[in-house]
Amino acid sequence: MTASERPARPVFVNARSDRVKAIRQMVGRSPRSDFGDRLVAEGPGAVREAADAGAIVDLWITPEADARNPSIASTAATAGGRIHLASPEVLLAMSSAAQGLLAIVRWPLLGLGDLLRQAQTPALLAVFEEIRDPGNAGCVVRAADAAGAGGVVFTAASVDPRSTKAVRASAGSFFHLPVIRAGSTAEIVEALRCAGLRILAADAAGTVALTALREAPGTACAPTAWLFGNEARGLSSEARGAGDAIVRIPIYGSAESLNLAMAATLCLYETAVARAQHGRSQDVWDNGPR
Amino acid sequence: MTASERPARPVFVNARSDRVKAIRQMVGRSPRSDFGDRLVAEGPGAVREAADAGAIVDLWITPEADARNPSIASTAATAGGRIHLASPEVLLAMSSAAQGLLAIVRWPLLGLGDLLRQAQTPALLAVFEEIRDPGNAGCVVRAADAAGAGGVVFTAASVDPRSTKAVRASAGSFFHLPVIRAGSTAEIVEALRCAGLRILAADAAGTVALTALREAPGTACAPTAWLFGNEARGLSSEARGAGDAIVRIPIYGSAESLNLAMAATLCLYETAVARAQHGRSQDVWDNGPR
Repeated sequence: MTASERPARPVFVNARSDRVKAIRQMVGRSPRSDFGDRLVAEGPGAVREAADAGAIVDLWITPEADARNPSIASTAATAGGRIHLASPEVLLAMSSAAQGLLAIVRWPLLGLGDLLRQAQTPALLAVFEEIRDPGNAGCVVRAADAAGAGGVVFTAASVDPRSTKAVRASAGSFFHLPVIRAGSTAEIVEALRCAGLRILAADAAGTVALTALREAPGTACAPTAWLFGNEARGLSSEARGAGDAIVRIPIYGSAESLNLAMAATLCLYETAVARAQHGRSQDVWDNGPR
Repeated sequence: MTASERPARPVFVNARSDRVKAIRQMVGRSPRSDFGDRLVAEGPGAVREAADAGAIVDLWITPEADARNPSIASTAATAGGRIHLASPEVLLAMSSAAQGLLAIVRWPLLGLGDLLRQAQTPALLAVFEEIRDPGNAGCVVRAADAAGAGGVVFTAASVDPRSTKAVRASAGSFFHLPVIRAGSTAEIVEALRCAGLRILAADAAGTVALTALREAPGTACAPTAWLFGNEARGLSSEARGAGDAIVRIPIYGSAESLNLAMAATLCLYETAVARAQHGRSQDVWDNGPR
């Protein structure tokens, strides 16, 4: 039963109300704001993922969008979300990218310890230092998800991956795997070491070519954390120093480099393919005492 | 000698002049405009590449940017470009992304025949159907350049890769390899076939996994054209039908797909690495009579 089919559901039509203005402000927040434990998901893809994750607090949806996406409202309601039917004008006043539906989602970020101290540490992690562009943050979460990574870690100096733009760029992946924003490079590296992960630092001046990993399949599928640097400055010297290897992506033409999202996609996929081709007995790495 | 060191060079200071307004309009043009044979390059990276390509008609540069990039003005002047020293206010009025320098560049796009009828056809080409976002167009040119492709072909229905945003997103790669926007999918496929190129169509529902190409190194380094579809709709059925193989990128996690620029990067690199690892006797494919 869609929200519109329920009897006597009033349709919210006041596009100038304080609630609409408050949501518009949430949508427009700078990615450097304090996001607390709430984010905004907009559009059918992201809202569906948020509903499937059982995380919707308030769903705003037009009768048309409700009819086109019949299961979203019932999934959200089953998990305790409040459903608000609203006019297209109301949704448009909230966000130009809502396409008829928008959700306020409860989504506290995990801490670093939550991810790394759990019984089994993921066998593939992606770590980003001081990523500044929310679109990039969303893209790399999507890439990490596609590569089967067990989590994404942003240093505390990065943008918040819960900004509306970042969530949109992740195409739903933000709700698929643990995403963390906490700690300095030194703290994160220390925690990765303790968890027994091999650390590969991606850097244009790396001493090992990414393609060389293919020739060492035994190590290619060891539990791995990839470190990636800031969009403009690349990796800090601290992060380079922490790598078990500093890996460069070969450039076959005249480009100086690839952008961060492309570079991360190639590196994460290289490890994902190695693990798939050379056998991984388990999706997670048993990090018992060593 | 930088432009500023030449004696008696007046500095243009009128940020409200008609010339400044005309350039601002060029910068703001829709990527679906008619670009004729002129484009705008802005910022040190793109302007330097345009200067090195000998293509600058007019260079606008602040004394500060001139001092920081001492060779750009002389390179542009040697190739016949006019140099205009201007105040930071003038450059800012032209474009918020100029960072002190901006160039009007002569850059007619090649036709399809120019690329494919030349004596030697490139051994790696990237073809894009109806790409709509100028940032994506620039990104994929950069990816193709990094992968050592011999050219990029956009269907006529795509955005013009000479838009200021596309040129900026290419990070200079637009000036490194032939970029074409011409023809329908059918015309392009026909030309690729005549040139003897193997056609790989990238599609989320492909029957061959990208990773399977690694297990057939002999064919992996055959001269190849990759076909990529529109950002939202993917490949047309025509393009899928034209592929010698329809190739999908394996997804190891829960993401539905990768975005176009990431997918193109992975596919082009797969072929580039195969060619590098399994030997290519030549960078171009000799397409003599067959």
